[in-house]
Amino acid sequence: MLLFLHSLRPKAKPSSLIISSSSLTLSFFLSFSSSPSSVTSTLSMATSDESSLRKALADKQSAVEAQGNAVRGLKSSSAASKPEIDAAVATLNALKLDKTSIERQLHALISDGNGGAVSREAFRQAVVNTLERRLFYIPSFKIYRGVAGLYDYGPPGCSVKSNVLAFWRQHFVLEENMLEVDCPCVTPEVVLKASGHVDKFTDLMVKDEKTGTCYRADHLLKDYCNEKLQKDLSISSDKAAELKHLLATLDDLSAEELGAKIKEFGIVAPDTKNPLSDPYPFNLMFQTSIGPSGLSPGYMRPETAQGIFVNFRDLYYYNGNKLPFAAAQIGQAFRNEISPRQGLLRVREFTLAEIEHFVDPDDKSHPKYSEVADLEFLMFPRHEQVSGQSAKRIRLGEAVSKGIVNNETLGYFIGRVYLFLTRLGIDKERLRFRQHLANEMAHYAADCWDAEIESSYGWIECVGIADRSAYDLRAHSEKSGIQLVAQEKFSEPKEVEKLVITPVKKELGLAFKGSQKNVVEALEAMNEKEALDVKAALESKGEVEFEVCTLGKTLTIKKNMVSIQKEKKKEHQRVFTPSVIEPSFGIGRIIYCLFEHSFYTRPSKGGDEQLNVFRFPPLVAPIKCTVFPLVQRPEYEEVAKVISKSLTAAGISHKIDITGTSIGKRYARTDELGVPFAITVDGTSSVTIRERDSKDQVRVDVEKAASVVREVAEGQTTWADVWSTFPHHSSAATDD
Amino acid sequence: MLLFLHSLRPKAKPSSLIISSSSLTLSFFLSFSSSPSSVTSTLSMATSDESSLRKALADKQSAVEAQGNAVRGLKSSSAASKPEIDAAVATLNALKLDKTSIERQLHALISDGNGGAVSREAFRQAVVNTLERRLFYIPSFKIYRGVAGLYDYGPPGCSVKSNVLAFWRQHFVLEENMLEVDCPCVTPEVVLKASGHVDKFTDLMVKDEKTGTCYRADHLLKDYCNEKLQKDLSISSDKAAELKHLLATLDDLSAEELGAKIKEFGIVAPDTKNPLSDPYPFNLMFQTSIGPSGLSPGYMRPETAQGIFVNFRDLYYYNGNKLPFAAAQIGQAFRNEISPRQGLLRVREFTLAEIEHFVDPDDKSHPKYSEVADLEFLMFPRHEQVSGQSAKRIRLGEAVSKGIVNNETLGYFIGRVYLFLTRLGIDKERLRFRQHLANEMAHYAADCWDAEIESSYGWIECVGIADRSAYDLRAHSEKSGIQLVAQEKFSEPKEVEKLVITPVKKELGLAFKGSQKNVVEALEAMNEKEALDVKAALESKGEVEFEVCTLGKTLTIKKNMVSIQKEKKKEHQRVFTPSVIEPSFGIGRIIYCLFEHSFYTRPSKGGDEQLNVFRFPPLVAPIKCTVFPLVQRPEYEEVAKVISKSLTAAGISHKIDITGTSIGKRYARTDELGVPFAITVDGTSSVTIRERDSKDQVRVDVEKAASVVREVAEGQTTWADVWSTFPHHSSAATDD
Repeated sequence: MLLFLHSLRPKAKPSSLIISSSSLTLSFFLSFSSSPSSVTSTLSMATSDESSLRKALADKQSAVEAQGNAVRGLKSSSAASKPEIDAAVATLNALKLDKTSIERQLHALISDGNGGAVSREAFRQAVVNTLERRLFYIPSFKIYRGVAGLYDYGPPGCSVKSNVLAFWRQHFVLEENMLEVDCPCVTPEVVLKASGHVDKFTDLMVKDEKTGTCYRADHLLKDYCNEKLQKDLSISSDKAAELKHLLATLDDLSAEELGAKIKEFGIVAPDTKNPLSDPYPFNLMFQTSIGPSGLSPGYMRPETAQGIFVNFRDLYYYNGNKLPFAAAQIGQAFRNEISPRQGLLRVREFTLAEIEHFVDPDDKSHPKYSEVADLEFLMFPRHEQVSGQSAKRIRLGEAVSKGIVNNETLGYFIGRVYLFLTRLGIDKERLRFRQHLANEMAHYAADCWDAEIESSYGWIECVGIADRSAYDLRAHSEKSGIQLVAQEKFSEPKEVEKLVITPVKKELGLAFKGSQKNVVEALEAMNEKEALDVKAALESKGEVEFEVCTLGKTLTIKKNMVSIQKEKKKEHQRVFTPSVIEPSFGIGRIIYCLFEHSFYTRPSKGGDEQLNVFRFPPLVAPIKCTVFPLVQRPEYEEVAKVISKSLTAAGISHKIDITGTSIGKRYARTDELGVPFAITVDGTSSVTIRERDSKDQVRVDVEKAASVVREVAEGQTTWADVWSTFPHHSSAATDD
Repeated sequence: MLLFLHSLRPKAKPSSLIISSSSLTLSFFLSFSSSPSSVTSTLSMATSDESSLRKALADKQSAVEAQGNAVRGLKSSSAASKPEIDAAVATLNALKLDKTSIERQLHALISDGNGGAVSREAFRQAVVNTLERRLFYIPSFKIYRGVAGLYDYGPPGCSVKSNVLAFWRQHFVLEENMLEVDCPCVTPEVVLKASGHVDKFTDLMVKDEKTGTCYRADHLLKDYCNEKLQKDLSISSDKAAELKHLLATLDDLSAEELGAKIKEFGIVAPDTKNPLSDPYPFNLMFQTSIGPSGLSPGYMRPETAQGIFVNFRDLYYYNGNKLPFAAAQIGQAFRNEISPRQGLLRVREFTLAEIEHFVDPDDKSHPKYSEVADLEFLMFPRHEQVSGQSAKRIRLGEAVSKGIVNNETLGYFIGRVYLFLTRLGIDKERLRFRQHLANEMAHYAADCWDAEIESSYGWIECVGIADRSAYDLRAHSEKSGIQLVAQEKFSEPKEVEKLVITPVKKELGLAFKGSQKNVVEALEAMNEKEALDVKAALESKGEVEFEVCTLGKTLTIKKNMVSIQKEKKKEHQRVFTPSVIEPSFGIGRIIYCLFEHSFYTRPSKGGDEQLNVFRFPPLVAPIKCTVFPLVQRPEYEEVAKVISKSLTAAGISHKIDITGTSIGKRYARTDELGVPFAITVDGTSSVTIRERDSKDQVRVDVEKAASVVREVAEGQTTWADVWSTFPHHSSAATDD
């Protein structure tokens, strides 16, 4: 999966940084708004103002200093007349006034940004307070003072989560006939060695040299740069540009470069001011040991994708040996963060939902592509980011036909992800698809797009959609020695020239005894280039050093041990490693953004307080309906029970609230949980149904109440239809 | 949770074994059929036969030896006449014949059991082959030669699993208004220290002293005993009884006792015949480290229950500070088995679904108890087990009113579990509720029942339903210092005599400085007995040694530091620790048993092969319906697409199969996946719907096909209704 890519999968380091200055400017704001690897340009004008103000300030400072020297010169010189001195002082004062004015402007400009941050922070606090108070989530193991980066979903959060996952299964697995699998979290080392995680799934860490406290090296550098840029008016425009460049390229710095910067800036441990160690890589996987011997290292999986890749052969067979097909998995993934931040957005354990869609690399068309081609939404292609433009509305079909999106299948999934997220209730205007820049992408990837959702933390990468080519299947083929390939049968045989590798088993057996089998397999597994190199070496030197990775050794292969020949052959089929297109969903991130997008406040009836509301669509709402007997009367409670039974039979989650609290309070309490409908029992033959956001109320017969709610909750009808069908109600008693 | 209790939660060792000889007899068969901690008596008659046969065999052997000696004596004596010798030889031969006959009988008796085992083994092999071939499950990481005890669910298995979980959520969480939570798997040590898992969640292990290979000590002893009992005809009846006693009490043996037995029997490492180490406890939790410092040990949770207990305070508040209420959690749990056996039944990672129902210990009635009181099913109370009887059908209401089941709430959950399992398709006749014997139960537990399902491995514990009293909440209260209690407000105040503990903070502050707060809390947390002891010591000696567990120290408390007095007080409420009743479901075990109960074979049309069928009810079937165009014709495929669209809209999972294979083959293929209905498109206006088990077929209009399947799949109607409503079909073309 591609979420949080910078440390996730092995990636090619770009040989030189190709980011233009305009993208640097942009990236500053990205970092400012704490968004991971995202770029925004809404404030780019302000930024260029900032730059010229810093320049003007520095110029004015020089002018003030020069004029100050001049005044001092005049004063100490006997030749200067009083009017001359007075005039010079007046000029100095005017310069100082100018300088103060520029400082004020610069300060205002920066704190304007901060003002935004402050109001975002206040909004977030309001959402998070409501979420925690109503147990949408709870810091895990709270009574033991918790563990950073671990959260529990409480009852309403758990319900939202299971609704989101049920819809995911419906929208992707069922509608697309995907093969869902469910693999364990405990994973043996060999699998994650093949995938690259054992060696490369790391973040750079520094330690407080006295206390041993650990910090993420890039976080410290980032905080330093942001602090300087936001609070220090005296830094030069060049210095500011340098810091912004650093922020933009933070993910690309090596351990040495990061260490050098930390030294250069004199960054110390934030808590103790102690010196820091050099940065070194820390593997982010939770390590454990499988079985009692202590000899089989294992890890808690950092993603669910590998479970699919290792099963490719069986799944391909299950699918009747046909491509394309997709496999999917929902499950827990783990990531031992050095220092978790940002609440639910960066946690140590999270639910992923991943799809691996296997296709013929020569044919990435998609049969259902036309169903999404006309969707139009915010896209942010690579070119627009680098040239400093902003995301723009593009028709998906256009993006594919112009080659902005690499292929139809990738485009199809972008469209399906758009539909999935917006149906959950994600705001269309705060959702964009951002293409990875060249330096963000793994070297083998054909194209990558992230669905980013804007939240109070900035633009958050919530879904990664990547064409990963044949990388993963090849890696596991090589490591396991099991070919993970597909076949295309030709309608008639084709003649091809092929390199044929024929190990001479007898000679290999004599030379390597019990290891013979591994050597044979390794020779046969050579790709064309390797085989040609070996052939050349054998022909020139008669022998070659050859690495057999399954043995972990390099052996000497002699000319008589293998024959490598080009031969013309008739082929009846083509054997190839499929490409994989991978949409990978960070479920917790999506849910958190959904919480923010759904939250609003409105004044209470008396206007004396602000009431919180989550405008969840029924699909997602933790409870679809509440049933309130208006007052505590046995006959009302009886009706409430009858309706409750019908709702249960219809599979509509609901809650009866028979407390004597005022109906307005009860509405407010459930609005805060995002319950879309309330049935108030205020009679024995008919009842009142109220919709959460409009607060509109209709009168419905007792027998019909459950089915009306079911139909509108399941989307078979709309509230507007209900509103136009049934008599309206506006009694003061049930009004809130 | 109570699954696999013997090593799960701290449990009192019974001071003496109170198992009667008849229960020993029974328990032998339990072990024989590899069932964990279960008892059966169906073969008890055979067993008493076995015992008398062994006795007869030993007697006959002695007689043969004695007669042999006599013959030798006669032969060597010159006084014996030939007829005398011939007569003695004839007697000897007759005795030998008798002995052979008894040996044959004993052998037959034992191999009769073995014959059963063989046919069970063959049945299991047939089920497992089908399950693995159709990817219901797959050994995890197969291309890397797998890891013992880890399995993937492939597409149909994954679908069955998510259907089972969805129904669990419907049947328990929604219908009972439970508070569902979702907590992380990664758990800090302190939580599992409090729960007792760090110290006591162990199995006893021995190591091959040369190779280091690990074995479960009890497994080796068990295998030895079973082998002896099944294959060695020469052991005495007493020896056989001793071995059976050992098998029955295996779970109660200490490391020393196990070690002594292993030495006594000369048991060696099975693979190498090397000597074995003494047994020592191996903790079954997967250990890891949280965060980068390496200083915060953590474990992968061994059960989900702890996540609920630590959240009790918040959940109680969420429930309006009212009891009773239940919280529930579905999630992964982990158990680092020493040597996993029994396929899906004993694995290293599994899905648990657990309920913690919190009640007032003084009132364990349940408002919905009457809804289940009339259910009647197989129960196996403690008394029946100990007195050698078998499980019998008992009305639940009777079991509760007679006090066999401890209380109404426990009874209610037993009833709900029965409904849950049988609705999934578990065979009523192969499901029983077995009460724990006194020596199986934790000392604090009020009563425990296991839902056991009979499979080819014997009776398997699949759901544990336990009244755990206040143990878990108290353990976390003590460890965390946070009171996990409930309040009952009195309608009018009650006068009570109470022990009032008043720490003198000033004195404690002077004496213990920064630790004052911990000391105050520890003093206040004393229970009545502890406080009275402290009071007595202070009054007699003026000071007392006092352990403050949050400090890990023992301090000296002087008389002036705390006042402990009995006082009369008016109380307005009662504060108490709720009891918890815990139904805990091993989802993988239930699913495996369901696979076995659903599997059958029937001859193919030609009678030349056996076809496999899973008779899953629609509720759990991985796919509800297939759509088959009878032959490859565009107009049929068009109809198939239309029907497929309607099925998708109705939320019915289905699959189109347009291969040209014969319809019979296609039916067989989907019967093997347990798909209950097939729509065969053999016309453009009407189609054929076929039911899997009866193979009955009806004709239905194209427009109605999807809704007919939906109604019967969702249980709104039955196949019998469909059969009586629509015209029947028996065309040879679609017959299989």
